[in-house]
Amino acid sequence: MSTIVKESNVRDLEILANRLRRDSLRSTNEAGSGHPTSCFSCAEIMSTLFFDEMEVNADNAKSLANDHFILSKGHAAPIYWAVLKEAGVSTDEELLELREFDSQQEGHPTPRSEWVDVATGSLGQGLSAGVGMALLDKREGRSNRTYVLCGDGEVAEGSIWEAASLASAMGLSNLATIVDVNGYGQTGETLYHHDLEVYRSRFEAFGWNAIIVDGHDVEALLDAYQQFDYEQERPTAIIAKTVKGKGVESLEGSEGAHGKAAPNFEEALNAIPDEETEGKVRFKPSDRAVTRREPNAESSLEYPSDKYEGEESVSLRKAFGSALESLGELRDDVWAFDGDVMNSTYSQNFQKRFPERFVESYIAEQNMVGMATGFSALGTVPFLSTFAAFLSRAHDQIRMAAVSRSNLKFAGTHVGVATGEDGPSQMGLEDIAMFRCLPGSLVLQPSDARSVYGCMNLMMEHRGISYLRVARPSVENLRSKGNWEYRIGGSHTLLSSEEDEVAIVASGVTVHYALDAAEQLAKKGVNARVIDCYSLKPIDGDTLRKTAEEIGKILIVEDHYKEGGLGEAVCHELRNLTCSTTHLYVDDVPRSGSQSRLSEAFGIDAKAIVRAA
Amino acid sequence: MSTIVKESNVRDLEILANRLRRDSLRSTNEAGSGHPTSCFSCAEIMSTLFFDEMEVNADNAKSLANDHFILSKGHAAPIYWAVLKEAGVSTDEELLELREFDSQQEGHPTPRSEWVDVATGSLGQGLSAGVGMALLDKREGRSNRTYVLCGDGEVAEGSIWEAASLASAMGLSNLATIVDVNGYGQTGETLYHHDLEVYRSRFEAFGWNAIIVDGHDVEALLDAYQQFDYEQERPTAIIAKTVKGKGVESLEGSEGAHGKAAPNFEEALNAIPDEETEGKVRFKPSDRAVTRREPNAESSLEYPSDKYEGEESVSLRKAFGSALESLGELRDDVWAFDGDVMNSTYSQNFQKRFPERFVESYIAEQNMVGMATGFSALGTVPFLSTFAAFLSRAHDQIRMAAVSRSNLKFAGTHVGVATGEDGPSQMGLEDIAMFRCLPGSLVLQPSDARSVYGCMNLMMEHRGISYLRVARPSVENLRSKGNWEYRIGGSHTLLSSEEDEVAIVASGVTVHYALDAAEQLAKKGVNARVIDCYSLKPIDGDTLRKTAEEIGKILIVEDHYKEGGLGEAVCHELRNLTCSTTHLYVDDVPRSGSQSRLSEAFGIDAKAIVRAA
Repeated sequence: MSTIVKESNVRDLEILANRLRRDSLRSTNEAGSGHPTSCFSCAEIMSTLFFDEMEVNADNAKSLANDHFILSKGHAAPIYWAVLKEAGVSTDEELLELREFDSQQEGHPTPRSEWVDVATGSLGQGLSAGVGMALLDKREGRSNRTYVLCGDGEVAEGSIWEAASLASAMGLSNLATIVDVNGYGQTGETLYHHDLEVYRSRFEAFGWNAIIVDGHDVEALLDAYQQFDYEQERPTAIIAKTVKGKGVESLEGSEGAHGKAAPNFEEALNAIPDEETEGKVRFKPSDRAVTRREPNAESSLEYPSDKYEGEESVSLRKAFGSALESLGELRDDVWAFDGDVMNSTYSQNFQKRFPERFVESYIAEQNMVGMATGFSALGTVPFLSTFAAFLSRAHDQIRMAAVSRSNLKFAGTHVGVATGEDGPSQMGLEDIAMFRCLPGSLVLQPSDARSVYGCMNLMMEHRGISYLRVARPSVENLRSKGNWEYRIGGSHTLLSSEEDEVAIVASGVTVHYALDAAEQLAKKGVNARVIDCYSLKPIDGDTLRKTAEEIGKILIVEDHYKEGGLGEAVCHELRNLTCSTTHLYVDDVPRSGSQSRLSEAFGIDAKAIVRAA
Repeated sequence: MSTIVKESNVRDLEILANRLRRDSLRSTNEAGSGHPTSCFSCAEIMSTLFFDEMEVNADNAKSLANDHFILSKGHAAPIYWAVLKEAGVSTDEELLELREFDSQQEGHPTPRSEWVDVATGSLGQGLSAGVGMALLDKREGRSNRTYVLCGDGEVAEGSIWEAASLASAMGLSNLATIVDVNGYGQTGETLYHHDLEVYRSRFEAFGWNAIIVDGHDVEALLDAYQQFDYEQERPTAIIAKTVKGKGVESLEGSEGAHGKAAPNFEEALNAIPDEETEGKVRFKPSDRAVTRREPNAESSLEYPSDKYEGEESVSLRKAFGSALESLGELRDDVWAFDGDVMNSTYSQNFQKRFPERFVESYIAEQNMVGMATGFSALGTVPFLSTFAAFLSRAHDQIRMAAVSRSNLKFAGTHVGVATGEDGPSQMGLEDIAMFRCLPGSLVLQPSDARSVYGCMNLMMEHRGISYLRVARPSVENLRSKGNWEYRIGGSHTLLSSEEDEVAIVASGVTVHYALDAAEQLAKKGVNARVIDCYSLKPIDGDTLRKTAEEIGKILIVEDHYKEGGLGEAVCHELRNLTCSTTHLYVDDVPRSGSQSRLSEAFGIDAKAIVRAA
């Protein structure tokens, strides 16, 4: 790298910026929608980044030798597609199919294009993914750099500051964010418009190396990219003053132009110079050595039955911690993330054993999920744990991880009223609904220690978002003997006879309530079947339907709110059958109290099941 | 207010701090759990705030003349309950019932105690509620102050910085946050431990007046409270250096002590001086004049049919904007919040008409919801609008608003694949699940302009969380004639005959697809009933069951993912009936494309309905 900028190169990059503007205008005009003015403000940033600064192998979008780029201001997607065309990795025809159903060039970037690592478009999320990538590169000993282009409007999102805080604490000098300060949001001026000092002082206070530049000055931008701060190990924020709509006077800085194709296309297009560059336009290839922690051969977790032998009850959280540690042994590509509760979730087992593959994310769940999305994009397998309730804090990030087709494994502890005395703020009671309602997700709830191991093998088998719902209390080991098989979409029938009059469908702690209830019912001469739906999504429809047909009476009991959980999943499966179905669930905001008092009060304990049966 | 602190008073406040410590220790010991060490670090902060600084009418917890206090570090609840006992508004007996089922003194504060305005315990949320209260006081011309006590660990949450940013931009000099920097989170040291300068520089960069104090020095604290910055209109952050577990040497700063009752109770209790104060311990009463915008007499929105006469199709978003504006006319206690998309949600109608009751929250949805929770706690009626997908950003805040029994009215626009070309990041496809899965929520989806008005009246009727799901496209006005009634838990049968062979159950845009399908089916000699489930929760179980019994064949179609939406709600209602039920829904991550292309591809359009019928 050099701080001397060749003049010819500068001129080419200026020409390229305008070519990118023209193509953004053309594609959004063709589509009839899109955000041309948001593209115009970052044209020089994009031309300098992609055609001078970054190293990218054009023949391999997924090369680990590539520098990483994340378009956090995802609505500027058209200019990214224009970059791909200039680099020769996509065509003009593809460019003009922007936003069409069969095109990979969507309104906001998604990994349907191989040139996109993480989906963006929900603002303020890109920086966390960038922190993840930069952290992984650093931990794996690669010298890549990560560049995240943010809009100024999205800097209002708290997730930006979660990411900024951790990035400096982790010493990510290989990370830069360029903030395209065009002064406008969707509806009007941003809070700070062109007061660049606000952004500088905030990034500096968050431990960053912050540089103010004119975002339309190619030389200034190239110079800024030379100022990565490896010495003090600080990430770099380039605060670029820009003009929204820059290049077409009628669109410049105008309110109301956001998110619309230009009204006077021909006039606008003619306003932007159309010139040829002197040099050849291409990505600068990378010949970096790629070091990486390769995944080992696939092998499954084995349940250490001797470990739990003789124990009457085992904490599911402790079993999770042990299983996670074992998984870390089996697979070098498994990483663990936690949000300041590793001594509650027991991810501390992994942390103690593999500190180099553990990421303490502190109390910032959005950034934790965003970082893990970055890790997943680079091919590792992240496990994330915290209290289930606090995963709702990152719902939008999890939603976007699903759009990114990320391979994230979540464990949510402290679920249901079984959480007890800490009260409703700490109880996950909507988590099944949240995780079931993600395309391609796998949702599991173990009911004992062996089941934790079985479910975690399924999580490894599944590619996509997986969720393990781990209750807080210790529970009896149901399957310390026997040879139980676990499968995605499976269930275990724990109790059954030819004379069953009712089937109790349960999951997690309610399996134990159901077994107690079955015992009490047996004393009254009623035989009850007990089905443990450890796989909540997909759910074992075949077994449920067979049971409904055989017995005709089903009782569902779950430690979750009514909607979107086990009950609705079962009713949906049984929709075409005749079956008397009762559903017990938590029907109001709970409160502090003991597990037994709460499960009694909310009508999901053994007594309630007996009553309902 | 004076900066001269009487010595006797200082001594009393020191004595009180220790009394609060003792009671926190006693109650957590009795409960067998809780967070005594987190209480100890803020004992002087609590004694000085409540027994010198704040004005609170002990006989009226809900008086608008009171200063406001929010315990953002909700796990320190025991010390707040101890304050209530010292002030004589609660008893020692109540104190010792901490965390019991019948007690209002929960593990984390909830409004089951009248002395709690908003529930806390999910960290990082209290400051937003405080910003809301301080903003409302300022807009309504009251001179109250708002005090938010934060832990240092929770300052990692981005929501803190969303709140901090808006608080300074709004000039909330009536707001102070005290950060109890005890240096420890749950598992170990926080990222910055006792580096107070980090906190000071961040708050200053966010436009705050920031003061570092010794948090165990009563005089220093009292002095800091005098430094509210009314002149420069800045909120004040008091960065208090404290010791976790302060007062009991064996617990001081020790890792692993978080969230546990003290192991050696007697010894610990004896370590804390037990003294009587010289002066009488009581809240300092407030005799502030209470000015407030009173709610007007209840009256309903009327659908302005003449406004839409002759229009073939009307944008539901525009109808929402008009209805919101009309509601603003009818009710002085209605406020509107939006997150930089008021020109998409059309809350701009309200903003233009009632700027003094509009809160532009910028791109920071968590803080938007947190502020509105503060507004609701002080008795106003907040409407919040943004893209439905982005409400998932604030899921945890919405969850906590439900725990707070807040009266929030949400409108989520851009729902389903009907959103079109912008792509999956902008499409609300899990929003019904998210809002249904909140205790006591009301979930509505209008299918035309009249229905928007009808549904908004129901939202006003309901106390709790309401959600209005507003699709992006313009749709035909189905009910411009006729006298339709709307009720919570109602539905409209739009098409029916004696010979119906199938009932199509739809909501929102799919009602229009269903009507198209019914027309096509009629041509094939098949009569279809069409039911518009505008009330998704509660859902019209009676009508659905009656229909199932009459027709025996139901086809559900929704522009939402499979789980937790209309389909599962209907199947749950019909669980005890025999009925052939088919469910059409969006079954994978969508992409960019036109509304018609996407609804065709995901099998929810009229053609798909005809095929399925």
